[in-house]
Amino acid sequence: MGISGHAVFFEDIDRSLDRYMQELCEFLRIPGVSAYSDSGDAMVRSAEWLLDKLRALGFSGELHGTEGWPIVLARHEYDESAPKLLIYGHYDVQPEVPLEEWSTPPFEPAFRDGAVFARGANDDKGQLYTYVKALETYKRATGSIPLNVIFLVEGEEEIGSKNLMRFLAENKERLRSDVFFVSDSSMLSKDIPAITYGFRGIVSFEIELQTMSHDLHSGLFGGIGMNAAMVLTNLLAKMVDSDGRIAVPGFYDDVRPIGERERNLMAQVPYDERAVAESLHMPSLAGERGYEAFERKSARPALDINGMWSGFTGEGSKTVIPAKAYAKISSRLVPDQRPEAIFERFEDFIAANLPAGAKAYVRWQFGAMPVVTNVDDPNIRLAAEAIEEGFGMAPVFIRSGGTIHIISEIKESLKIPSMLILGWGRPENRSHSPNERFYVDDFRKAARSLCVLFEKLAKQ
Amino acid sequence: MGISGHAVFFEDIDRSLDRYMQELCEFLRIPGVSAYSDSGDAMVRSAEWLLDKLRALGFSGELHGTEGWPIVLARHEYDESAPKLLIYGHYDVQPEVPLEEWSTPPFEPAFRDGAVFARGANDDKGQLYTYVKALETYKRATGSIPLNVIFLVEGEEEIGSKNLMRFLAENKERLRSDVFFVSDSSMLSKDIPAITYGFRGIVSFEIELQTMSHDLHSGLFGGIGMNAAMVLTNLLAKMVDSDGRIAVPGFYDDVRPIGERERNLMAQVPYDERAVAESLHMPSLAGERGYEAFERKSARPALDINGMWSGFTGEGSKTVIPAKAYAKISSRLVPDQRPEAIFERFEDFIAANLPAGAKAYVRWQFGAMPVVTNVDDPNIRLAAEAIEEGFGMAPVFIRSGGTIHIISEIKESLKIPSMLILGWGRPENRSHSPNERFYVDDFRKAARSLCVLFEKLAKQ
Repeated sequence: MGISGHAVFFEDIDRSLDRYMQELCEFLRIPGVSAYSDSGDAMVRSAEWLLDKLRALGFSGELHGTEGWPIVLARHEYDESAPKLLIYGHYDVQPEVPLEEWSTPPFEPAFRDGAVFARGANDDKGQLYTYVKALETYKRATGSIPLNVIFLVEGEEEIGSKNLMRFLAENKERLRSDVFFVSDSSMLSKDIPAITYGFRGIVSFEIELQTMSHDLHSGLFGGIGMNAAMVLTNLLAKMVDSDGRIAVPGFYDDVRPIGERERNLMAQVPYDERAVAESLHMPSLAGERGYEAFERKSARPALDINGMWSGFTGEGSKTVIPAKAYAKISSRLVPDQRPEAIFERFEDFIAANLPAGAKAYVRWQFGAMPVVTNVDDPNIRLAAEAIEEGFGMAPVFIRSGGTIHIISEIKESLKIPSMLILGWGRPENRSHSPNERFYVDDFRKAARSLCVLFEKLAKQ
Repeated sequence: MGISGHAVFFEDIDRSLDRYMQELCEFLRIPGVSAYSDSGDAMVRSAEWLLDKLRALGFSGELHGTEGWPIVLARHEYDESAPKLLIYGHYDVQPEVPLEEWSTPPFEPAFRDGAVFARGANDDKGQLYTYVKALETYKRATGSIPLNVIFLVEGEEEIGSKNLMRFLAENKERLRSDVFFVSDSSMLSKDIPAITYGFRGIVSFEIELQTMSHDLHSGLFGGIGMNAAMVLTNLLAKMVDSDGRIAVPGFYDDVRPIGERERNLMAQVPYDERAVAESLHMPSLAGERGYEAFERKSARPALDINGMWSGFTGEGSKTVIPAKAYAKISSRLVPDQRPEAIFERFEDFIAANLPAGAKAYVRWQFGAMPVVTNVDDPNIRLAAEAIEEGFGMAPVFIRSGGTIHIISEIKESLKIPSMLILGWGRPENRSHSPNERFYVDDFRKAARSLCVLFEKLAKQ
């Protein structure tokens, strides 16, 4: 099948696009926030909804209960000699707060400016659903799906994928595959598609700091009480130096330096630092001195306070000396940093920097190894050709600053030879933030690219 | 009337004490938190409840509506030549959060260990109510109240007394008095009563810090985004130096040094620094180097973060770079610091210490002047004698670290010659904190002292 054959895919996609988007909206309306322990009903409904759509395509499958949220496992078997594809995604979404900053409600999808706005539109429901609909178009256009395909879709990506890790370890045989697909990453920019060959790792932890047995009146005790918020701000301020480097001893010990070849590869990627800063209303981008912005956000580690709170945070004022203060911290890691080792560095740093009398409880939340895949894999070349056809633009090869916890696990557990990390979301799609969105035209181009790629893989 | 006459008061108080406490519990059950804008019903009920009790004693009075919560003004007129007493107090209470740290619910008064536990038990409903019941006992024991008495009770003490300030300015004539009473302060310790001759002032403000147009995904933007929580912690950490001194330029310019006479007076006050630290589970008290604990908490200024928050503070985790961060700050002031001038120092400091690209909105919340009264006033001597009889222990003379916003205003506006600031609450009564309490025996001794003092003033 040549270009004319691809036209069959492309025309079908154009004809079906409205319906595909309406189906996606059904998915987006289910408020499945994995971080909320009371999301159970929405989580199961999300998983069942997706499974129904796969069954309608001829897949067999089921939900696998876990200690947390269920895993969707669905399978299409074609022929033992055909390539085996494993498509990974997640149906859970990030918390929707702060609600008041959304222009339209996070779980009522709305179309404007060519995009659908909703929590999960980009991360990951929208990107995941391109695979389901590309397969539908492929099947309608050619009469069959001449590949073995497994969908493995979890509900805990945003909270650390713990139960999927266990599932992987227990189901290595069933999940054996030749090519692994993920679309939970980004395009380079709204016009330039990207294939991602690396992700950062992460370590996430929470600090609970206590200085006294209880909160005190700031009048009666101001000048003798030990203010937990002030101790915490002092501690946190010491974690990064004035060059933007993480000042935790040993933090950089295992960081693999950015090599010459990679630095050149990154330098070739068009990245308009000024435009990114402007889009964020920043005079210039922040971060570590001595590295380009594109390096800092993908190939260098980073530290962020994700949240902090202490004392009285309600309406009005309360003149109190807080006895407790809290911070949620995460650090993005690069090869060859290990989350457990970095966590210990932070524990040591915190213990060494607390004033006498202050106690800190440092609680591990989750961790994931950084990963870099082989950029010279032949399947990556096929994917690049397919994307060039689907998007009308060749993809660039990038390392993502984000983390897909499960990728390093899959790499370790299943030993799948090829990894295709194909980003359909634009960087400005506001994953994790209010007004998250996914562009309809990107959905269309992604589905086109996938049809072409499926064909290339089937003919290989 | 001599000691035998006082016995009439004391016996009446002992007989009535159970009922007095049950009445106080009715007052404490009304959840009148002035900081919550939806407290309206509870605020009006608190004020009306108190007014009813005063009317039952023969007072005439009414509620005065304000732009905020109403003011209770009630008057007993005896004889133009008798002393005119103005008794000030407040019926509003601090927010009850964090609710989960209360052993019993804050608005369901519970008796244990000889105390009544409830929000407002100490600050100020319990202390205020000693006056009402002392007058009841006095009237029953002697047949009349041979004094002119005004109760002036507001509902905005915990949020800055703004409307009472206005009311004072507009009602100077009606409020003209000889002796001003407040019981919204502390005993020195559970055994040692105190007369307070000074209060600290305060300036309270809120910082809203913004670094970017919106929150970002910490994976995609970690290393280039500017984290508002990290900028805020850096800023706040700079406000106090390693000697515990406030590092805001000019902050100490107008601080009146502690003189020799006063330093000696303070040194005579028994204050068990070690016991205070132990009661707070601190190895030692914190604060500014070079000053005794008792000086630091009353005659030196102090700075506290009363609350701060940024990013994701809910259950679980959210890997976000917050674009906004907030802090509620207050600083206790001593003569001759002025809240407006100190606020400007902080504004300048914040502007000078922000990194390029970060914006801070610094919002004034409220301020009050520090005040020191004349410790040699003859009415203070009478009060000391009465307290010695009521408590069986002579009071000490102290400066409070707390602030009663209205005292400096009353001093300026009404020019009342005598001020009696009589603390019935123990320092450990946890004003503003969970498990606030007021001891029944202190209520009893306070009522005894007030009966004796009323008699001394009537006979003067």
